[in-house]
Amino acid sequence: MLSFEVKMPVRYYETDLMGVVHHSNYVRYFECARNVMMEQMGYPVEQLAADGYFTPVISVECKYHKPAVMGDTVTAVAKIENAPLAKLYVKQAVFNQNGELLADGQVVVAFTDKQTGRPVRCPEKLLSIIESKL
Amino acid sequence: MLSFEVKMPVRYYETDLMGVVHHSNYVRYFECARNVMMEQMGYPVEQLAADGYFTPVISVECKYHKPAVMGDTVTAVAKIENAPLAKLYVKQAVFNQNGELLADGQVVVAFTDKQTGRPVRCPEKLLSIIESKL
Amino acid sequence: MLSFEVKMPVRYYETDLMGVVHHSNYVRYFECARNVMMEQMGYPVEQLAADGYFTPVISVECKYHKPAVMGDTVTAVAKIENAPLAKLYVKQAVFNQNGELLADGQVVVAFTDKQTGRPVRCPEKLLSIIESKL
Amino acid sequence: MLSFEVKMPVRYYETDLMGVVHHSNYVRYFECARNVMMEQMGYPVEQLAADGYFTPVISVECKYHKPAVMGDTVTAVAKIENAPLAKLYVKQAVFNQNGELLADGQVVVAFTDKQTGRPVRCPEKLLSIIESKL
Repeated sequence: MLSFEVKMPVRYYETDLMGVVHHSNYVRYFECARNVMMEQMGYPVEQLAADGYFTPVISVECKYHKPAVMGDTVTAVAKIENAPLAKLYVKQAVFNQNGELLADGQVVVAFTDKQTGRPVRCPEKLLSIIESKL
Repeated sequence: MLSFEVKMPVRYYETDLMGVVHHSNYVRYFECARNVMMEQMGYPVEQLAADGYFTPVISVECKYHKPAVMGDTVTAVAKIENAPLAKLYVKQAVFNQNGELLADGQVVVAFTDKQTGRPVRCPEKLLSIIESKL
Repeated sequence: MLSFEVKMPVRYYETDLMGVVHHSNYVRYFECARNVMMEQMGYPVEQLAADGYFTPVISVECKYHKPAVMGDTVTAVAKIENAPLAKLYVKQAVFNQNGELLADGQVVVAFTDKQTGRPVRCPEKLLSIIESKL
Repeated sequence: MLSFEVKMPVRYYETDLMGVVHHSNYVRYFECARNVMMEQMGYPVEQLAADGYFTPVISVECKYHKPAVMGDTVTAVAKIENAPLAKLYVKQAVFNQNGELLADGQVVVAFTDKQTGRPVRCPEKLLSIIESKL
């Protein structure tokens, strides 16, 4: 299994009137972890886009266990268990600085031709990288 | 079944470099529909908060079918099929101005005591409203 | 002077831990008013983009007078006093449902060639519209 | 003069359909720099809040010079030149990884009693810290 993570201090604008990080922001933390994953695999999303591919999200599942608050530094995690075909399944989680699980779930990403918007198989270059590391 | 909806023009800042509405914003559209739902049931969330209750989201599931673009006006929908006990299950969807389904899913909301943060049962007032309308 | 406005209920995710709408969102409300302005003048930004033009913001000034809270419906205003040359100066304001001024300021927008990113003069079509209405 | 900074990779959701970071996000980068400033001075905003104070923004000025794009890592800067009385004036800037100035401006922050919402003078503890370091 491939695992990647990124640490991010909670940002003030991410909080809401309940005094905690708004639930939509965990979906964004998940994305940050996926983008760090791509970067650390040597194929950042901006390169993927330059090569003609977009990676739209086709589903998100997120369970919330404990809220993050201002002052926390969260760690967002992205894990790949299988080489992608048409879809990339990413296990995701967010922890706080004490190692407590705040949220977890799964995000499924597709690959599309940037010009036509049509679904395509996982680009060979990315597939090779993932297979070599799994 | 109770069904509520709200129309919202896509906002420029909601788009991303793929040229479409960023996937995290559908989670926010879902919330807008839930808040309109509360308002139209006669018990807006700010009143719920004034009465001592918060309604944190405990899970989100969202499937993406077709992207919204700048110029679209989306309709976000929230539906309740059953009276809540400790949790409120809300069916959610987003359509565009042509009635095409862009995203759908389910959001589960809990009830907490605003002071202690502890989970509580659905406030009687809200339960009565929902039961009277179902 | 041309004046345009749009009403928007405050969205939950726009609030922060101070319990009010986060200050960055007024900059977004300003943009919503400018986009409604473009739409009501008959030249929505997505058409402008289709015609090859982007309209990047080159400066924002915003003074905050009173916070918006959950439950409020704000009215965002955009006014044009002069026909644009290379830059469009837009007077902006946000009011609440009681007509109280929450924020005001000015946003300056440039015109660029979408392909090259180079600054260009205000597109003739837009200039004609504005001059005919001023 | 006191100067503080924080490095932040551009996040995907911060981009818009122009393919660059949406202008409202620089206002948020400015805030991140101010919050790091408070933390590095030894008085983080969550402590300030715990001590009974909020620090609402009362004005923002931002000039945009060059856009940030996906793949960039921006550095947000906050500088204090004078000890605050009722208001704290913060000079702000955002640079990219090549040291190019992307945006700059000034944000003015007030101090309020968290309970009453009333303006107060700069809390003594914060004033001492700033004066000792200026």
